[in-house]
Amino acid sequence: MQWIDYVGLFGAFLSSVTFVPQVYKAWQTRSTGDLSYWMLLILLGNVSTWLFYGIVKKDLAIIIANAIILSLALILLYFKITFKSKPS
Amino acid sequence: MQWIDYVGLFGAFLSSVTFVPQVYKAWQTRSTGDLSYWMLLILLGNVSTWLFYGIVKKDLAIIIANAIILSLALILLYFKITFKSKPS
Repeated sequence: MQWIDYVGLFGAFLSSVTFVPQVYKAWQTRSTGDLSYWMLLILLGNVSTWLFYGIVKKDLAIIIANAIILSLALILLYFKITFKSKPS
Repeated sequence: MQWIDYVGLFGAFLSSVTFVPQVYKAWQTRSTGDLSYWMLLILLGNVSTWLFYGIVKKDLAIIIANAIILSLALILLYFKITFKSKPS
């Protein structure tokens, strides 16, 4: 592996954990009113596409990163549907 | 280009527009209380890393997609700092 491939792996790692704090915050506050439904739906389409791309290309970093993001996005969508926004 | 490269381009396009609805929603509602600061900060680190990766690899799709996401993430961070969350 060249040094730039390690940069890519670091990027894949950061991508994987991006939504962890958002899932945690939504879980703690039970409030998801400010989250955009469309963002979550496009995110699901986006990571599903990359997951498919990774599987066809047999690229394990892309597969693992997007499988993690897909799981987090599904959890966020579930929270968005389940937790009603706090009255303002 | 092979067919799977078009899948990658479609993934890059979806990635680019993922945060557009979130920026729009935050702008409309002037409310960002449910957005996680840490998600935005990690997102900035994540897309900066990919932007750097794309520049070194001279991959235009990665550069354009991540430059767009970086701009949207910076706008969201600005909104998060500027718009105070609605009292609940």
